[in-house]
Amino acid sequence: MSDVFDRLSQVLAERRNASPDSSYVAQLHHKGLNKILEKVGEEATEMIIAAKDAEHPTDADRERLRLEAVKETADVWFHSLVALSHLGLGLEDVEAELARRFGTSGLEEKASRTRS
Amino acid sequence: MSDVFDRLSQVLAERRNASPDSSYVAQLHHKGLNKILEKVGEEATEMIIAAKDAEHPTDADRERLRLEAVKETADVWFHSLVALSHLGLGLEDVEAELARRFGTSGLEEKASRTRS
Amino acid sequence: MSDVFDRLSQVLAERRNASPDSSYVAQLHHKGLNKILEKVGEEATEMIIAAKDAEHPTDADRERLRLEAVKETADVWFHSLVALSHLGLGLEDVEAELARRFGTSGLEEKASRTRS
Amino acid sequence: MSDVFDRLSQVLAERRNASPDSSYVAQLHHKGLNKILEKVGEEATEMIIAAKDAEHPTDADRERLRLEAVKETADVWFHSLVALSHLGLGLEDVEAELARRFGTSGLEEKASRTRS
Repeated sequence: MSDVFDRLSQVLAERRNASPDSSYVAQLHHKGLNKILEKVGEEATEMIIAAKDAEHPTDADRERLRLEAVKETADVWFHSLVALSHLGLGLEDVEAELARRFGTSGLEEKASRTRS
Repeated sequence: MSDVFDRLSQVLAERRNASPDSSYVAQLHHKGLNKILEKVGEEATEMIIAAKDAEHPTDADRERLRLEAVKETADVWFHSLVALSHLGLGLEDVEAELARRFGTSGLEEKASRTRS
Repeated sequence: MSDVFDRLSQVLAERRNASPDSSYVAQLHHKGLNKILEKVGEEATEMIIAAKDAEHPTDADRERLRLEAVKETADVWFHSLVALSHLGLGLEDVEAELARRFGTSGLEEKASRTRS
Repeated sequence: MSDVFDRLSQVLAERRNASPDSSYVAQLHHKGLNKILEKVGEEATEMIIAAKDAEHPTDADRERLRLEAVKETADVWFHSLVALSHLGLGLEDVEAELARRFGTSGLEEKASRTRS
């Protein structure tokens, strides 16, 4: 399952310094950090709205609304990785941070303790 | 490296219906979707601010600011997974969506085409 | 100075049920609450980014960056009023809430006490 | 009605350089721009969620949910004014910007034209 993260990581690295015409990611980098972060905020908002819509679905629209919430979450993750990539950071840094909190030795959840 | 996602997935599943006293995640589920989504928005804001701070660091604070941007990104991912978990969805759904866009057969980036 | 709020209020009321073709506001209402709220989140993100850029300006870009922060704040206020208007609420309701907190008799700041 | 904006403006100016102990606003300024902007993002998220909850209310909770949406909007406006105040800007700047778009001579809505 995790192969997709490796693949995504590779795609993002390749497109960090590619020509703006060559892809959406390259275009985002060319537009700069502000534009990338605007997308993060925009997608986070859309994810929140999609999750609210998926909270009380009817049978008829349940699957569509759930898929929408997943898609918006993927958009948030994707654009936050582009932001990190713009700063010279990557998926492996997020993984290391999550491992620090939830690693194999992490029998205890650490998220709450690291929160201000 | 990807083991951490499996571990995180497992942790989130275990805590979906645990007693509110038992963990931060269980407490979030108990408080409900609105509270979870507020955290998503809050962490997305903090990630954006941290990324801005990491944009033009001095040598002295570069590593600290980069780590902060990574931590906030991890917080966004973590809380968005709690939101999905609250809706009966999970990491595997986000992975499937990313695979659809960036899968092994996905020589072309698909993100731009699926965006409205 | 406050005449502009009366004027804005009047404009928003007129355009609540106007033809989608007639104005940007009418178009937003036609697209629905989700689209309006997406704009609120988008503009809030842009306001935050603009404020960060205005934090440490050079002499050369100080005025431009300050104006940008003001413009984005106006965008947030404007779109939040469109959202309220969509729900049958208006500027007078926000004013009443602010008056409750900061009214003429409100010698003490009440905002902190009403916060959860 | 507009007196509350004058009053709010006056309160914010007084508290810009007051002792952190003296009020919530003074405390926010003391914590700095990042903390203030985090509040803007947090309140914007809460406003969006409250608006979604007010979208399809039952008769029993209609008034409560509408009031909640208004309160969150007031929170967004209030904290965005604290942010502007931190940058040496104020309500009069937002009013000037809105007047430029919706002023007495502004028979046409200008918001859409000024948007990128």
